[in-house]
Amino acid sequence: MDSTFPIEQHKKYRGKLFTGLKVPMDSIDDLKVYYTPGVADPCKLIAEEEQAAIAAGKASGQRPNLETEALYATTIKGNTVAVVSDGSAVLGLGNIGARAGIPVMEGKCSLFKKFANVDAFPICVDTQDVEEIVRVVKMIAPIFGGINLEDISAPRCFEVERRLREELDIPVFHDDQHGTAVICLAGLYNAMKVVGKQLETAKIVISGAGAAGISIADLLMTAGATDVILVDSKGIIAEDRADMNDEKILYAKKSNPRGVRGSLADAIHGADVVIGVSKAGLITKEMVASMANAGAGTGMNGDGRLGPGGPIVFAMANPTPEIMPNEAIEAGAAVCATGRSDFPNQLNNVLVFPGIFRGALDNRVKVMTIDMQIAAAKALAALVANPTAEKIIPGVFEPGVSAEVAKVVR
Amino acid sequence: MDSTFPIEQHKKYRGKLFTGLKVPMDSIDDLKVYYTPGVADPCKLIAEEEQAAIAAGKASGQRPNLETEALYATTIKGNTVAVVSDGSAVLGLGNIGARAGIPVMEGKCSLFKKFANVDAFPICVDTQDVEEIVRVVKMIAPIFGGINLEDISAPRCFEVERRLREELDIPVFHDDQHGTAVICLAGLYNAMKVVGKQLETAKIVISGAGAAGISIADLLMTAGATDVILVDSKGIIAEDRADMNDEKILYAKKSNPRGVRGSLADAIHGADVVIGVSKAGLITKEMVASMANAGAGTGMNGDGRLGPGGPIVFAMANPTPEIMPNEAIEAGAAVCATGRSDFPNQLNNVLVFPGIFRGALDNRVKVMTIDMQIAAAKALAALVANPTAEKIIPGVFEPGVSAEVAKVVR
Repeated sequence: MDSTFPIEQHKKYRGKLFTGLKVPMDSIDDLKVYYTPGVADPCKLIAEEEQAAIAAGKASGQRPNLETEALYATTIKGNTVAVVSDGSAVLGLGNIGARAGIPVMEGKCSLFKKFANVDAFPICVDTQDVEEIVRVVKMIAPIFGGINLEDISAPRCFEVERRLREELDIPVFHDDQHGTAVICLAGLYNAMKVVGKQLETAKIVISGAGAAGISIADLLMTAGATDVILVDSKGIIAEDRADMNDEKILYAKKSNPRGVRGSLADAIHGADVVIGVSKAGLITKEMVASMANAGAGTGMNGDGRLGPGGPIVFAMANPTPEIMPNEAIEAGAAVCATGRSDFPNQLNNVLVFPGIFRGALDNRVKVMTIDMQIAAAKALAALVANPTAEKIIPGVFEPGVSAEVAKVVR
Repeated sequence: MDSTFPIEQHKKYRGKLFTGLKVPMDSIDDLKVYYTPGVADPCKLIAEEEQAAIAAGKASGQRPNLETEALYATTIKGNTVAVVSDGSAVLGLGNIGARAGIPVMEGKCSLFKKFANVDAFPICVDTQDVEEIVRVVKMIAPIFGGINLEDISAPRCFEVERRLREELDIPVFHDDQHGTAVICLAGLYNAMKVVGKQLETAKIVISGAGAAGISIADLLMTAGATDVILVDSKGIIAEDRADMNDEKILYAKKSNPRGVRGSLADAIHGADVVIGVSKAGLITKEMVASMANAGAGTGMNGDGRLGPGGPIVFAMANPTPEIMPNEAIEAGAAVCATGRSDFPNQLNNVLVFPGIFRGALDNRVKVMTIDMQIAAAKALAALVANPTAEKIIPGVFEPGVSAEVAKVVR
């Protein structure tokens, strides 16, 4: 299934983005307005607002780090987002570095444009040091209205995001964490309806405790889930393990309330939901068959529910899922979703991040709170009027999705 | 003459640039090619070329800072330039900082697009420390095929450019220095023809010893000028002055061969050419009247030359020149040029930098040598078939200018 597309299609265009002109530049008169001398006017307006803020005691320093109204009114800042990566965790390719990650970052920028008319520019930083990444993003922030962190490996991504949120006055969003968590919760809301179970009581296993896994656990628990188990490559995240980073130590305390120990198979045994954000092939048919109510389908018969439906399997590893959907269904899963477009139920962040940033930019929202993320998941779920096992989430090209998501960010 | 344009024209568009799509993104099939999973192919190709270079001993490190063919073939790098400024010397506005300088940097990017189809993006760095500027530009360099430094004050701009040229494998060009020098030399070639004088023997005074002044002196002397005097706000640059930065100390040795001392008026007295890259109003009518052959016009009478023509005055301060053209002519100048579009002979960098970068990108030229700069000046001068006092340089919108300049960068 890992079809390879001709590299010629990428070479033909030499990248995916260009810089276009919003203003006329066709005559000397145009240049007088939009270049010299006319361009001095917005410069002076921005500088004057900065000085006024200093005089009013609202800012300090000779050149204050200040998001003035004039800056948003007269420059591209208000519609421009940086897609920032250090190339340390690119797609399923791993740590391929800043340069080899560029095609993905350009692709991400293209999706911003296509789905929410956000002007995004790829910034691939030639360092994988947390301090340096934070420093460089702060230094180049003046032109950007938001920062989308992308494909930065855990646990460094948590620190980078936390620091930038503290130190910048524009929104910072690590899509691999929060975009993935939102789309996952959105799908889960509808999948739960399909099988007649409740988020609050469901036993949920997350395979993968990196950026996405930790963030999904955080969002699901904030949304009301009470029984979440995280599993990494060494087994279940639990308090007696000695080989964990700070984030895992924190979630060893917050998750796994029944104190389960052991492997992924041990965690999945008897679970209602398994969410994979890990690696191809990690979930076996035997594991799915061991889940609660395996083979019960949706639990519906004719027009009435007879009992709880079968397992929910979200196998989101890209491009090859933890288990292929047909295998999961054969093993007794009731609802299966992947990150892929060639199966039903594509859980794709592109349903999330364009709308999140559209809303943040339009409303000058600095922090996309976890409540907004839950609201975004609910809005996405609500776009599917009658969820079924094969339709728990809107399609990528369904109109109005980013606009609905944008509404909750204000 | 300093008309102010309605700020509404700037607010109407909210900046000058947008990010557009070169690739189709209209269907799931498009996403499969240009986003996941197809986007992994160019990523892998770039990573493989990097690893092959390491294996061949041509690069070192785990993620080499390497400009691979695949990077240019499959990403926007080969057509993308960063316009980098710290906002320390913006137009005639001075040190207004990174944010207030954004409108100018966007304008510069627009000119790159309009005149040479180069995709340029403004990077306004929130630091004025040389080490930090160098570091941040190096960190974000992977996505860019060239760096255009802009509006960075002297003498820091010399150090920033020198360091980046040493440490990056892509072209770095400080337009305020070299673009200004090239357009000045181009105009001077034709002005010299008009008045029947020689660059090699002309007495040339440069008012202003910042980024532009120093660079003009350097280019004119490399092109053959032998009698150049630089003047800053404290007077003539000369070896016995104790208040000069390293660049000025260097040019005190290299310039002023007659050892002239004193003020701008002292320098201009008896000179053939004065070039202003300083401040509005610094050159008086009395100074122009004191120049060699003042009032001799072009030195032509009927169809034959009678003698040397009068003074050449390039008053390039923006937006208000060192002396207004009508005053210079009244005082006896034979040829007058400014940076403005509302007088004859507009010496505008936009005739230079788009073509310089077009050529550098198309031919993967890393260093725009001073010989290329001289060649660019000659190419620009040659575009005016029959120079006259009112036409020494092509108009900004004359077709083919950037293509002619691009030809010399290879």
